[in-house]
Amino acid sequence: MSSLDYSQDPSHTSLPLIVRKEAPYNAEPTPSDLVKNYVTPEKYFFCRNHGPLPDIKEETHHIKIQGIGCLEPVEFSMKQLKHNYEKHSIMMAMQCAGNRRDGLHKVKHTKGVIWGPGALGNAVYSGCRLRDVLADVGVTSKISNMTKLHVAFESVEACEEDTCYGSSIPLSKALDEFGDVLLAYEMNYQTLSRDHGFPIRVVVPGYIGGRSVKYLKSITIQDHESFSFYQRRDYKILPENVSCEAQANDYWCKVPSIGEYNVQSYVCHPEDGLHKEPSMNQIVQGYALSGGGRSIQRVDVSGDDGKTWVVAQLHQPAAKDNNCRVWAWCLWTAVVATKRGVRIVSRATDSSGNIQQEYPVWNYRGVMNNAWRTVEPDKLNLSCL
Amino acid sequence: MSSLDYSQDPSHTSLPLIVRKEAPYNAEPTPSDLVKNYVTPEKYFFCRNHGPLPDIKEETHHIKIQGIGCLEPVEFSMKQLKHNYEKHSIMMAMQCAGNRRDGLHKVKHTKGVIWGPGALGNAVYSGCRLRDVLADVGVTSKISNMTKLHVAFESVEACEEDTCYGSSIPLSKALDEFGDVLLAYEMNYQTLSRDHGFPIRVVVPGYIGGRSVKYLKSITIQDHESFSFYQRRDYKILPENVSCEAQANDYWCKVPSIGEYNVQSYVCHPEDGLHKEPSMNQIVQGYALSGGGRSIQRVDVSGDDGKTWVVAQLHQPAAKDNNCRVWAWCLWTAVVATKRGVRIVSRATDSSGNIQQEYPVWNYRGVMNNAWRTVEPDKLNLSCL
Repeated sequence: MSSLDYSQDPSHTSLPLIVRKEAPYNAEPTPSDLVKNYVTPEKYFFCRNHGPLPDIKEETHHIKIQGIGCLEPVEFSMKQLKHNYEKHSIMMAMQCAGNRRDGLHKVKHTKGVIWGPGALGNAVYSGCRLRDVLADVGVTSKISNMTKLHVAFESVEACEEDTCYGSSIPLSKALDEFGDVLLAYEMNYQTLSRDHGFPIRVVVPGYIGGRSVKYLKSITIQDHESFSFYQRRDYKILPENVSCEAQANDYWCKVPSIGEYNVQSYVCHPEDGLHKEPSMNQIVQGYALSGGGRSIQRVDVSGDDGKTWVVAQLHQPAAKDNNCRVWAWCLWTAVVATKRGVRIVSRATDSSGNIQQEYPVWNYRGVMNNAWRTVEPDKLNLSCL
Repeated sequence: MSSLDYSQDPSHTSLPLIVRKEAPYNAEPTPSDLVKNYVTPEKYFFCRNHGPLPDIKEETHHIKIQGIGCLEPVEFSMKQLKHNYEKHSIMMAMQCAGNRRDGLHKVKHTKGVIWGPGALGNAVYSGCRLRDVLADVGVTSKISNMTKLHVAFESVEACEEDTCYGSSIPLSKALDEFGDVLLAYEMNYQTLSRDHGFPIRVVVPGYIGGRSVKYLKSITIQDHESFSFYQRRDYKILPENVSCEAQANDYWCKVPSIGEYNVQSYVCHPEDGLHKEPSMNQIVQGYALSGGGRSIQRVDVSGDDGKTWVVAQLHQPAAKDNNCRVWAWCLWTAVVATKRGVRIVSRATDSSGNIQQEYPVWNYRGVMNNAWRTVEPDKLNLSCL
């Protein structure tokens, strides 16, 4: 695994992103850049890689589908996927499970790229519905033991921790008529870039980004989760008492892998909730989102460390006249009185009444941090591991 | 409305329930009774009524279905619903949005029956799938504007606040293949009792109990939510600054109605987390659940006011080998060291990583309280409004 060759990676030097790790390339936008647009332009979209970026020829690339319910393995060319299936577009937030890991890392050492609050973006993805393709190979909700089955995805991407990137989702999510899982070949109405999975990737709305496998090469219906490192030994919320690799080894198989993400929000303007001068009327802006298609119901903003709260104005067009699933994020604005040395904080409530917790509940992998209290700026240590 | 006649209500004196309001009859079990069984026997099942209990003759009762997508209004007899549609059973937690209102009421006056932690139960409901019946009258997911439509339910129950009980859910929830919305005529394999909606009720798994309309008389597909008091001016999370009816009047139409409930847990043994003597090895038991089919991932229990936590052992058979929706609750056990005068508390994390908040976020209607900190026993005031 130490022989991974990054020499063919595209240059990222012109991107206005904060680099969290050079190789593999991991980078995020500044908080203020992040909330400039409701649909995040690619230049402000975080990049998450586990190895060198594959350089795939679309003309010769095939996706293999096999496993339980399939009569025999079937290979689809990109042309077949693009021309034989209805093209469907969804707008969704893509968020890494490690978004805001810095807040947990400050509490105690965590394992992983130390992301700030920018490991997410909101994009329009277009492609074919996975359920349409699965129906064609014979896999529908009528399959026996449907609730016990999984859909595993394998990537062309060679990785640091495993031979290739892989992950899985419940078959029920893939087959859900309102689940909107796509095999996407476009992002924001452009052909996918190499950074984002060219020529084809899975997008699993409402789930952590790690399930939206890029550079897709195979799909397998199976009676167990993916055996990939990234499914079994990575994106899990370990108990607080597990704080090193040796302890974690006893726990990976006892703890469920993460699917949907939790309710989240963050103050992005003024940047990271910090301001130079106290103000009676500080304009505050940020993002909010929740997993599983849950929209944002309310965002409270406080300039006095949580003693009093102001209700923010929400910009969440994806939720308008839509009482089904909402995959896109919410941008919000509030005007609050701020104090010297007091960080401005936000607290979102989603459509199921879940609220961001107050204090971080630390976990070794530093995932799913949605505490509304954040560590103070002078204590921040954003260096990469 | 003041002329409601309760003289024909059945006697409830033999039930081992704590009565929160006599008329209409509202009562809940003690915390320790509640967690004696994974499937809650009816005698320990909370009763939530808004008026006198209807006394309906099954032989002559009909359900009318009408509205958008229906060619014409159709009436179904009980016999037709029982014999023409496949009988389907689901196990689900039924939880009132006002469960644990006492915790918010202690912070500041709330409006509503002052429930303790027992306004929920876990039962097996059997009946026909609403989506099967809707398909027969012509309403499927192919309907135009599906994501904008609602299914409204009306009850025979005459009420204090409205002419009859009514509510609605998104049509997408009703049509969801994995949504499991039933028109139920049995509870725990027995014919529904008058207390629980005889002869037929809606059950909406993963949603607050208020949407599971009892004594069902009509179903309407419409382009707006139910106009019922209980949909429009009741089960909503108002902002913290709204603290009386006059203020609420300006907010009802601006705040979404509650559908799915949030992540929740409670210490039921020792009762309400209280213990007579400190112990090094106190056995602690309680319940945990989350809305929308999200299972419980972990329950932490603390005997030292949240300084340290022990991971509880979960009993959640409904989640075993099931990676689709989990509607039933979780019972849990832990052994902790306890201190004199310190209440034992629990904190659940659901499968989407949502965690119970630490402190109550008060709202006027006192709904969706899932704070893990609770008010101290000597300060409790459980009198009814």
